[in-house]
Amino acid sequence: MVIVGAGFGGLTAARALKKVDVRITVIDRSNHHLFQPLLYQVATAALNPSDIAAPIRRILRGQKNVEVILAEVVSIDTSRRMVVLADGLVPYDFLILATGATHSYFGHDEWEPFAPGLKSIQDALDIRRRVLTAFEVAEREPDPEVRRAWMTFVIVGAGPTGTELAGTLVEVARHTLSRDFRHIDPAEASVILLEGTDKVLSAYVDELSTKAKEQLERLGVEVRTGKIVTEIDADGVTAGTERIAAKTILWAAGVAASPLARSLCVPLDRAGRVMVEPDLSIPGHPEIAVIGDLAHVESEGKLVPGVAPAAMQMGAAAAENLRTMLGSRPRSVFHYRDKGMLATIGRGAAVAQLGKWKASGYIAWLLWLFVHIFFLIGFRNRLLVMIQWAWSYVTYDRGARLITGRVKGPLVHGLTSELLPPSDAPPSQPMVTTRYDP
Amino acid sequence: MVIVGAGFGGLTAARALKKVDVRITVIDRSNHHLFQPLLYQVATAALNPSDIAAPIRRILRGQKNVEVILAEVVSIDTSRRMVVLADGLVPYDFLILATGATHSYFGHDEWEPFAPGLKSIQDALDIRRRVLTAFEVAEREPDPEVRRAWMTFVIVGAGPTGTELAGTLVEVARHTLSRDFRHIDPAEASVILLEGTDKVLSAYVDELSTKAKEQLERLGVEVRTGKIVTEIDADGVTAGTERIAAKTILWAAGVAASPLARSLCVPLDRAGRVMVEPDLSIPGHPEIAVIGDLAHVESEGKLVPGVAPAAMQMGAAAAENLRTMLGSRPRSVFHYRDKGMLATIGRGAAVAQLGKWKASGYIAWLLWLFVHIFFLIGFRNRLLVMIQWAWSYVTYDRGARLITGRVKGPLVHGLTSELLPPSDAPPSQPMVTTRYDP
Repeated sequence: MVIVGAGFGGLTAARALKKVDVRITVIDRSNHHLFQPLLYQVATAALNPSDIAAPIRRILRGQKNVEVILAEVVSIDTSRRMVVLADGLVPYDFLILATGATHSYFGHDEWEPFAPGLKSIQDALDIRRRVLTAFEVAEREPDPEVRRAWMTFVIVGAGPTGTELAGTLVEVARHTLSRDFRHIDPAEASVILLEGTDKVLSAYVDELSTKAKEQLERLGVEVRTGKIVTEIDADGVTAGTERIAAKTILWAAGVAASPLARSLCVPLDRAGRVMVEPDLSIPGHPEIAVIGDLAHVESEGKLVPGVAPAAMQMGAAAAENLRTMLGSRPRSVFHYRDKGMLATIGRGAAVAQLGKWKASGYIAWLLWLFVHIFFLIGFRNRLLVMIQWAWSYVTYDRGARLITGRVKGPLVHGLTSELLPPSDAPPSQPMVTTRYDP
Repeated sequence: MVIVGAGFGGLTAARALKKVDVRITVIDRSNHHLFQPLLYQVATAALNPSDIAAPIRRILRGQKNVEVILAEVVSIDTSRRMVVLADGLVPYDFLILATGATHSYFGHDEWEPFAPGLKSIQDALDIRRRVLTAFEVAEREPDPEVRRAWMTFVIVGAGPTGTELAGTLVEVARHTLSRDFRHIDPAEASVILLEGTDKVLSAYVDELSTKAKEQLERLGVEVRTGKIVTEIDADGVTAGTERIAAKTILWAAGVAASPLARSLCVPLDRAGRVMVEPDLSIPGHPEIAVIGDLAHVESEGKLVPGVAPAAMQMGAAAAENLRTMLGSRPRSVFHYRDKGMLATIGRGAAVAQLGKWKASGYIAWLLWLFVHIFFLIGFRNRLLVMIQWAWSYVTYDRGARLITGRVKGPLVHGLTSELLPPSDAPPSQPMVTTRYDP
């Protein structure tokens, strides 16, 4: 059998089949499993990529019935039962499809270069580079209006990712960078969180949404709800009639299921997710299960949310169904067990909703911390993350403040390249300052 | 005054001027200072980039007379006393130039895409991706001859960097990856170290060179001395009459000084280094000091080596000369104090030469370990590096085994893209294996 995607869903399925007499091929286009809930910490320079990612081979190396392939899957040929790779083919008898979701610009893909989303390690490093570079450029910018635009950070979408990014960016600006610049005060940076609906963290009950908004504002985030973004370009965002001049815009709004779903030729929902049967298979193909963020599943009349625990439960259920099929027993219907929701907002700020139990503030934040460290795959990462968090918490310092990646010539797109000054410029000055030609 | 380059030399100079009443502008094209002696550990997945790099701003933030600028320096206009940036100008009254060196392909720049060198974080991540990807491709390659080429790693140049890379790559192959693959045995990988001269680590006395070669061979490296490379392409290396089929070639041979040296219009040596005066200034320009790997300096009749301690001593000397100039006292001649040389080869293997005292093997390795941890800038990094090293030492595991960077379509350049198989291919197979069309 083949599992495509080694996220929370795919890995759980592979591990659940450890003792079953079946040969498993796990295919992923990256060599690592990513602990996505902490990706924003890489984007905001608190953690290193390898703290939240582990090689898939290492995770599965003890499991003898598994083979791992690093490859890009192009489509699924359901009639011939083939996984089509960019550079080969893998036949399957059973298939678990767990390729997840990416961000969606609601038909405005032209916004992507100006407002990157956060789904992969590479995305996180891109965002980190943009944020850190913005302060570097602001430091050198003489025009106050342009400088303000470099020090304005707009986050579109107040779901869990947007909320985390906004809360953390304020902390970076107000504390981490506070004493590092000479011409700007990073604490004056504006972090603006735009949300189309009328509340932040809309999956939570109203009481917690309000609490979350209050906590964000206390940290220093400007929260603006009911703002539908209509335009994004290199210089800012337009939301309705309002124009915000900002050089750094981050996208945390829409999600779209992996385009692989389309090759299955079965009904999809509006976000591109596969409308699966109650047992997670697809119509007419009991040998295929679709799980995780790629699956549209209802449980007790409600859509199962796109969160890690749901993906893991589906992975386990799909594996169980495969086992019963091998033993010719009837397959079971998937039931989602809601273990609650947690969202962090910033230092000491979070909201938690576990059934009827609700919490916000410091308690919720400690719970969040505990859950996230506990579930980080691999002891080594867990220890390192704990040390780094403890260190940042005490010192407000962030170790991974590196601008990396190949950037040639002027360091930022949009910085004007300048000519030499007229040759009557003073040959030397006792006070050295950076000068720019108009 | 202006300091260009925040490596060991530039940073030392800036710090030495802490109490002097002078305004200092430090310009660097990256935002971090790099602990280059450990860069090979990032390339071989043992350490994270931020473990060996620290933001220049953070290092200098307590020093009120320093301003840091992130910018690419294009040239020095010595007549008008201007540092010309890609996007601006910075005038200077005093200038310390410390932009270091990069790798040189001896006029064969066309080799660079096939044999990357190791000078920046980005280089290290590129090499890491190439090495890890090579094993991934080998795992999927059915042709034994091609598979062998993917599992052959050639390192050109047996200086400190080449030696470290070779020793560490063998460890990665034999231990770290040992149980992760199903179709290949990574321990069968060949690591070949090619050297043009007749010994490895030629800066060391013969006795230690021989010891280093023995240690490399005991670890499993094939050392081939007296081999001048005449051709490098995507499929291998030619050294004299010998052709080695290898898909991964790393360049650790030549160094060339930063091209900025040319804009000074003063004599350079063959490697492009500036022939400085005994006080580190350049002919006719007492206001300019050139230090570190960019400077060709002789001390007691011998060329000062391009190592971190030498750069730091020059930085201190240049700062001292500036101070004496401000006080109108005479400038002093630079003397290099050789504190000895250390090179690591692999787990428990190193050589050390401190004046007349020589050591090799475990003792030298412990000394190397101590010195490198001690000099890592910033306590936080030091602690994390120690934990990670201790962990890798005990478990042979390497945490940073991530293949990152944008790679689209087929994951490796040179992998053939394939067509669908004929439609009479079996629709399903009980045993799933990866298949390839010829």
